[in-house]
Amino acid sequence: MEAITEVKYALDTFYFLVTGALVMWMAAGFAMLEAGLVRAKNTTEILTKNIALYAIACIMYMLIGYGIMYPGDAAVNSWWPGLHGILGSDDNTAQAVLASGGDIYYSNLSDFFFQVVFCATAMSVVSGAVAERMKLWAFLAFAVVLTGFIYPMQGYWKWGGGFLDQLGFLDFAGSGVVHLTGGAAALAGVLLLGARKGKYGPKGEINPIPGANMPMATLGTFILWLGWFGFNGGSELIVSNVAEANAVAMVFVNTNAAAAGGVVAAMITARLMFGKTDLTMALNGALAGLVAITAEPLTPTPLLATIVGAIGGILVVFSIVSMDKFKIDDPVGAISVHGVVGMWGLIAVTLSNPDATLTAQLTGLVTILLWVFIASLIVWLILKAVMGIRVTEEEEYEGLDLTDCGLEAYPEFTGSKGSGI
Amino acid sequence: MEAITEVKYALDTFYFLVTGALVMWMAAGFAMLEAGLVRAKNTTEILTKNIALYAIACIMYMLIGYGIMYPGDAAVNSWWPGLHGILGSDDNTAQAVLASGGDIYYSNLSDFFFQVVFCATAMSVVSGAVAERMKLWAFLAFAVVLTGFIYPMQGYWKWGGGFLDQLGFLDFAGSGVVHLTGGAAALAGVLLLGARKGKYGPKGEINPIPGANMPMATLGTFILWLGWFGFNGGSELIVSNVAEANAVAMVFVNTNAAAAGGVVAAMITARLMFGKTDLTMALNGALAGLVAITAEPLTPTPLLATIVGAIGGILVVFSIVSMDKFKIDDPVGAISVHGVVGMWGLIAVTLSNPDATLTAQLTGLVTILLWVFIASLIVWLILKAVMGIRVTEEEEYEGLDLTDCGLEAYPEFTGSKGSGI
Amino acid sequence: MEAITEVKYALDTFYFLVTGALVMWMAAGFAMLEAGLVRAKNTTEILTKNIALYAIACIMYMLIGYGIMYPGDAAVNSWWPGLHGILGSDDNTAQAVLASGGDIYYSNLSDFFFQVVFCATAMSVVSGAVAERMKLWAFLAFAVVLTGFIYPMQGYWKWGGGFLDQLGFLDFAGSGVVHLTGGAAALAGVLLLGARKGKYGPKGEINPIPGANMPMATLGTFILWLGWFGFNGGSELIVSNVAEANAVAMVFVNTNAAAAGGVVAAMITARLMFGKTDLTMALNGALAGLVAITAEPLTPTPLLATIVGAIGGILVVFSIVSMDKFKIDDPVGAISVHGVVGMWGLIAVTLSNPDATLTAQLTGLVTILLWVFIASLIVWLILKAVMGIRVTEEEEYEGLDLTDCGLEAYPEFTGSKGSGI
Repeated sequence: MEAITEVKYALDTFYFLVTGALVMWMAAGFAMLEAGLVRAKNTTEILTKNIALYAIACIMYMLIGYGIMYPGDAAVNSWWPGLHGILGSDDNTAQAVLASGGDIYYSNLSDFFFQVVFCATAMSVVSGAVAERMKLWAFLAFAVVLTGFIYPMQGYWKWGGGFLDQLGFLDFAGSGVVHLTGGAAALAGVLLLGARKGKYGPKGEINPIPGANMPMATLGTFILWLGWFGFNGGSELIVSNVAEANAVAMVFVNTNAAAAGGVVAAMITARLMFGKTDLTMALNGALAGLVAITAEPLTPTPLLATIVGAIGGILVVFSIVSMDKFKIDDPVGAISVHGVVGMWGLIAVTLSNPDATLTAQLTGLVTILLWVFIASLIVWLILKAVMGIRVTEEEEYEGLDLTDCGLEAYPEFTGSKGSGI
Repeated sequence: MEAITEVKYALDTFYFLVTGALVMWMAAGFAMLEAGLVRAKNTTEILTKNIALYAIACIMYMLIGYGIMYPGDAAVNSWWPGLHGILGSDDNTAQAVLASGGDIYYSNLSDFFFQVVFCATAMSVVSGAVAERMKLWAFLAFAVVLTGFIYPMQGYWKWGGGFLDQLGFLDFAGSGVVHLTGGAAALAGVLLLGARKGKYGPKGEINPIPGANMPMATLGTFILWLGWFGFNGGSELIVSNVAEANAVAMVFVNTNAAAAGGVVAAMITARLMFGKTDLTMALNGALAGLVAITAEPLTPTPLLATIVGAIGGILVVFSIVSMDKFKIDDPVGAISVHGVVGMWGLIAVTLSNPDATLTAQLTGLVTILLWVFIASLIVWLILKAVMGIRVTEEEEYEGLDLTDCGLEAYPEFTGSKGSGI
Repeated sequence: MEAITEVKYALDTFYFLVTGALVMWMAAGFAMLEAGLVRAKNTTEILTKNIALYAIACIMYMLIGYGIMYPGDAAVNSWWPGLHGILGSDDNTAQAVLASGGDIYYSNLSDFFFQVVFCATAMSVVSGAVAERMKLWAFLAFAVVLTGFIYPMQGYWKWGGGFLDQLGFLDFAGSGVVHLTGGAAALAGVLLLGARKGKYGPKGEINPIPGANMPMATLGTFILWLGWFGFNGGSELIVSNVAEANAVAMVFVNTNAAAAGGVVAAMITARLMFGKTDLTMALNGALAGLVAITAEPLTPTPLLATIVGAIGGILVVFSIVSMDKFKIDDPVGAISVHGVVGMWGLIAVTLSNPDATLTAQLTGLVTILLWVFIASLIVWLILKAVMGIRVTEEEEYEGLDLTDCGLEAYPEFTGSKGSGI
């Protein structure tokens, strides 16, 4: 191999690993965001869910998911990729096998690393929405199915070269494939679970249930913002020539700009609607901006990216308010941020990318939404029948930390005021 | 283009993006540091300020600031760069425009990304100093002006090729351009605002007002330390040959060494002065070491870098103590860390860099200090007249979280003890 | 020099700096993990210890340690490297000196940066185990000796080319050199210190002392997980050709897989043993998986890496339970995670690396364990005689934050419930 090709291969591989590590860091972001937005008595449990779901995603995607999502030449057809072995199973040296498949322009293991953290991200979206009343092990069982099968199937349809890809559906880094997937799976769970006790009063009143730790929630948002440079920036897949390096730079700039637009727009919207500058709306605005730009962070100008993010930021405030009207109880706003704004992101591709058609985007949107929602609903229903998905009313009152984990998150901070809120 | 040049371009661009992402991460560092050092009742508000100022900086610098700071050939003269369009406005593809300007050795968008996070850093310095009594929206209005105009103007004078650059003023990564700027803007605000109620007693006593969350403050410091590898390391601008790669490595080593020196020196100083090993002084020592080495992290040996940082660490302890004597109430010590030690950093350049002259360094120091202080003072005065900059005494007592944000940061932790401290 | 060689040099240097920055980030991880797992009244002190030990490690390793560990051609013999000057002392430009020593394939200063953060990591292991009853300055004095002498000596024996390296002992990234070292030094300290008051009752009962802040502990674990990509990934030392890039990718994938295996295995083990899903065991499981794969993250398949990590995760639960039976009081489980599982990691090398022999691995294991344990014990004994290592019973009851640091970590959160637990 030519020396220059070796260096490019090395640079692209290193770029993939660095951006993959940033995406892995998003797992910490979700954990902190959710830990900050739930009550003290359910904090240990949500932390446990977050670290466990990441671990499960890594294992299931290695065993099954990656083979489904990227079957390579082995795909059966554009709907059904077939079932393939676990990572590296064809040969005792996974590395050699992977490196030999397809064009060699970066280590396929670095690709796996990047992909596996995406899979975990989709599942992370779910944990926040079902917080404070779902059984821990039912949740983990769902994680096994989502990361091993539901996510990889639709991932194959788009990124693995399946039918959505073939009909021109565009989704650069996964407003649909990752975030809408997470949102749709969460919605199915929330509808079956029902709202937390006390969230909606008998006369239709909506009771706010404030999160216990705002610095944690803010930290989580900043972590996610940082991680998103890997999420979107790594999705360009190559950096080793002038055109690609420019593209990656554009993606970084636009990702940042969209998040900034989301913060400002959500803050102003919240100020106008509530008369206060709601921090949680600012945080959700940042995330909404990021989700909105994820489907197309390359073709907009930085100014358009800011606007796409800002619309996401406005949308998320209205969506969160609307969810409560429909009594869809989502403690952290995950369905709005990732599901609703994910759909906006898919549509926004048409604003700047001349290759996008509204038809293809809507087809992709509807396909992912229906597939993930229905498949998830079936899994949640089975889990409900087999082991139950909701804790008892008493356990909910006590808090999941004690009943599921046997460990308080803040044993010294929550005196009389903390118990049983 | 030659293949090797393409790879170098790609490597330098990627290096810029990675270091830029690290600097972005500093926004989280400031947020956590300040959230840890204020009282519980003002925590949500300071978090809101931090995420909002970062977003505002990104938008204003894109719209106006970058054009002022880096006008390229279009500059009117060495004092006044002229006004230029928003990023990418000359053409619908920002990327092409930017790439064509000047030597093509890395993506100009990656340069913008790196620069925009610097601009936000300068503004982050301000938020801590004015904490616990400034109106949220007055602060945000100031952020618009600082990031859109005040910061870029003096940035042009040095890094944009203006008169300070021409007369030999040296400031590698911004002890002056970034940190002194933040410190001077903060000082102007603090002088107008006055001290927090109860900080200085009627008989001249100084009452400590401890921060609510030391792990958060420590986390913020570690985040800043990590981010500083990007801040200083990326300021070498190129990494793609042996000499530059060695230089970047030197910058990393010296940045780390100076922070370490700052910690140890500040700890020992505090131990000798107070009889206790004050954690907040250790944290400020780390930051002081980092600020001190920022103007010249390349030419010192690691041992000298440690000493430069250590002097910064000693200086910061005395400065914080002195500020209180003058009743300059800076809840997090930002004016000392970034302003006072920033000045030391500019002077310390002469210790190791043979190209530096004390005259040039002092000229730069005084120019930046006066420009930023006076311009900021005018803006603060206008804001004071138009909308007021200080909350009412009652709001200050209640805490800004409830009055400005309508949301407590730790609703379950602060029982009787937390309210109204 | 050929242009391509320059770019490779630059890429390898940059890779070293990025992975080194990730390892530096582990210092924050240890600080947060330990701050989360101790009681509120000892939190400021453990934070102070963590930032101070990192600073001390950076200074001592620059002054003495690096010269001992990597004497180059100047080594006296395979047991005793001789004493060498401080970093860069042979010449006023450290950079030139370092770059000229040995093969020039990346900046030696980037190597120093990577190595110094490893040295700090070893010391970080100790702070958790001796938490809540050791005198701050006795601890810092120990840090001086460990990072300046004890760690570098055994580091020389393996990575510096000493006798352990010559007899075929394999330790890729330091299950032994770093983690077992930390564990053995901690064990010596804990044995001399004794258990915390109230941990073990008069009738042999073991009283759990829960940590004050679970989100902090979880954050620390995620930080360490992220940092470990640098720890193991950077230990390949080169990335700039196809074979090395593939190797680095393999290391990233296996590091992640082992951590995931550790989480799941520890969670299930804890669930079976205690009937609850203990978050702290899940966190320790992640860390155990990481420690276990550190001695050989390159040769296993991802599936085997998962299993190696899972065995680490099971082992850590049993080890933590066993330690309490022997009344070895380790508040954060550091001796189990780093010491016991570090030994497993050294042995697990034989599962996949054909070059490994059980004899060589056991020789290395026993050498490191004995050297570090005995040398540390002597230092602890001297410190005990000279200045005392344990705080008084009253100070322990009051908490080290007030007695050593004069500053509460959470002054507003711990009301009646928090004082004196």
